[in-house]
Amino acid sequence: MSQTITFTNDVGRAIDRAIARLKPNKTFVLVDTTTRLLVLPTINSETLRHATIIEIPQGEDGKCIATIIEVWQQLQNEGATRHSSLINLGGGVVTDLGGFAAATFKRGFAFINVPTTLLSAVDAAVGGKTGINFGRLKNEVGAFAMADEVIISTCFFNTLPATQLRSGYAEMLKHALLKSPEETQRLLEFDIEQVDLNALLPLLETSVKVKEEIVAQDPHELGLRRALNLGHTAGHAFESLALQRGKPTPHGYAVAWGLVVELVLSHMALQFDSVLLHRIAEHVRNTYGTMLIDCDDYPALLNLMHHDKKSRHGEIDCTLLRAPGDITTGNTVADADMTAALDIYRDLLGI
Amino acid sequence: MSQTITFTNDVGRAIDRAIARLKPNKTFVLVDTTTRLLVLPTINSETLRHATIIEIPQGEDGKCIATIIEVWQQLQNEGATRHSSLINLGGGVVTDLGGFAAATFKRGFAFINVPTTLLSAVDAAVGGKTGINFGRLKNEVGAFAMADEVIISTCFFNTLPATQLRSGYAEMLKHALLKSPEETQRLLEFDIEQVDLNALLPLLETSVKVKEEIVAQDPHELGLRRALNLGHTAGHAFESLALQRGKPTPHGYAVAWGLVVELVLSHMALQFDSVLLHRIAEHVRNTYGTMLIDCDDYPALLNLMHHDKKSRHGEIDCTLLRAPGDITTGNTVADADMTAALDIYRDLLGI
Repeated sequence: MSQTITFTNDVGRAIDRAIARLKPNKTFVLVDTTTRLLVLPTINSETLRHATIIEIPQGEDGKCIATIIEVWQQLQNEGATRHSSLINLGGGVVTDLGGFAAATFKRGFAFINVPTTLLSAVDAAVGGKTGINFGRLKNEVGAFAMADEVIISTCFFNTLPATQLRSGYAEMLKHALLKSPEETQRLLEFDIEQVDLNALLPLLETSVKVKEEIVAQDPHELGLRRALNLGHTAGHAFESLALQRGKPTPHGYAVAWGLVVELVLSHMALQFDSVLLHRIAEHVRNTYGTMLIDCDDYPALLNLMHHDKKSRHGEIDCTLLRAPGDITTGNTVADADMTAALDIYRDLLGI
Repeated sequence: MSQTITFTNDVGRAIDRAIARLKPNKTFVLVDTTTRLLVLPTINSETLRHATIIEIPQGEDGKCIATIIEVWQQLQNEGATRHSSLINLGGGVVTDLGGFAAATFKRGFAFINVPTTLLSAVDAAVGGKTGINFGRLKNEVGAFAMADEVIISTCFFNTLPATQLRSGYAEMLKHALLKSPEETQRLLEFDIEQVDLNALLPLLETSVKVKEEIVAQDPHELGLRRALNLGHTAGHAFESLALQRGKPTPHGYAVAWGLVVELVLSHMALQFDSVLLHRIAEHVRNTYGTMLIDCDDYPALLNLMHHDKKSRHGEIDCTLLRAPGDITTGNTVADADMTAALDIYRDLLGI
């Protein structure tokens, strides 16, 4: 289980090289409405000029069974075989759905991910999780299948809205916390509001390697990979609550708030440094603002955490840190402790 | 990539043991209309009495996208998680489709195959190929996913029609030819018309092990696994031609005829023993009769072979034998040689 990850700002050349290595009998490129219009024409690649384009609808609603059936059908109509290749050019929806299509058409052929958002570069495109939403649940149907190559560049990010950059940055902050105090420091000093894309590329490279190393040790999420869930137990609950309120929040924002809650728990249970906790909480407040919650929301939040899909026996399960880089997975958190952590979180974020 | 294969005539106990080992939080059993009625009630198993039953339609037509969507939906409705288990109780359609459902629901959970036909016991249930038909092509969408355990018994076969037993026997003959002269001899001496089910079980065990050893060395069919294609290049062409004529033939019958064609080629190219070739041809004629073909059918048959999905560059690709157990894969066969082999095949089968 390993995949080649290339960091470059010459994406066209990287694609041509990957295809020269794979030697497919036919090359397909999967795009959505936006990446077809805004990204595809900007890449100077011989491969892309001759590839067969498959377009799917833009957005999370398109990550569904009807779309994957349409993609399988087009692959069949255009004569894809197990010796073909698929290039997924887009955000998380394109790489997740395209990866699943490639993993299952004729029982699998090679695919290359070219993430076009910061969030997909740092998270979805790497690590072999593919899938679609089903029956209103996210990623309910899918497969573990590694892209043969992931080509990561920051050159597509200059047109991204600020909310999307911040959303990806939250996952980078999570990786930094899993890595080391130094990497956490580097991230906190990086200005995501006035992004220097050249400076972002090496930072992104370090960040992706954190995930890569964890995934290599536990591709099927049997143990260590749960470390990547840091911030996500509380984060998913915030995300779902926001959705129930009819005011959806970007995934990365919810993760940033979730990181604060789980670092509070880390402080309570494992003496995570209080100065650093305060510094991160302030950084999160300045970058992401706050989502207003009060005591009346606690039962709903706790209920969501008990039913998180990573929960094994209906208990609240969190990844916690003794310090940046010092990880413990599989911690069971009592309701009383989570309630206390939510209280402190509200204090820290000035709610 | 390995799977536990248990040979037993106490299937209920084997199922209970497998589930005791896997410790799923919930157990599902996939059946079709026939196995629910005729097989499920005959198995004495605590597990099956408490399992949630999912039933799919009987037959190849049900091995489709609509059925897998229905299975995913029932798994979701009944609260399956990645810690659940699925027991596939049926023929190739049930084990192929059930395996694909288990391989993809929440990115995969454990499944157990309990094949109820000789053909699925010797072929479909073992080796990790799962999938469904799509757009009128067989197994067009699927995944490589090993069952955690395959429980093989001959006790379900006493109600099988003779055509189904013969169909499975053809794949056993193929395995024997891949294994050794002695195993080929044993198979030719076994009476599939008056089956002794107790004598069949150890023969089946040896047969399945041939496939198991080949698959273990090449799970994703990159090389050696193509050995298992012996008899299938010509066999698939016969099967498709019969379908085009509106007179479908059982898979195993087509494979038996295909074995004769490819042993003729083996004799022509690699000096496969002519006495054994004649003996096998006679055995095939006595067991399977013949499918009438004449020279006018050759262009259609050759065309089908050129478009076989195992063909890499549109050339006819065959597995050939120097002798039983002495295998060469990836042989390119010229049209003239295939035509000559079809002529000799017709002579041998008295057409």
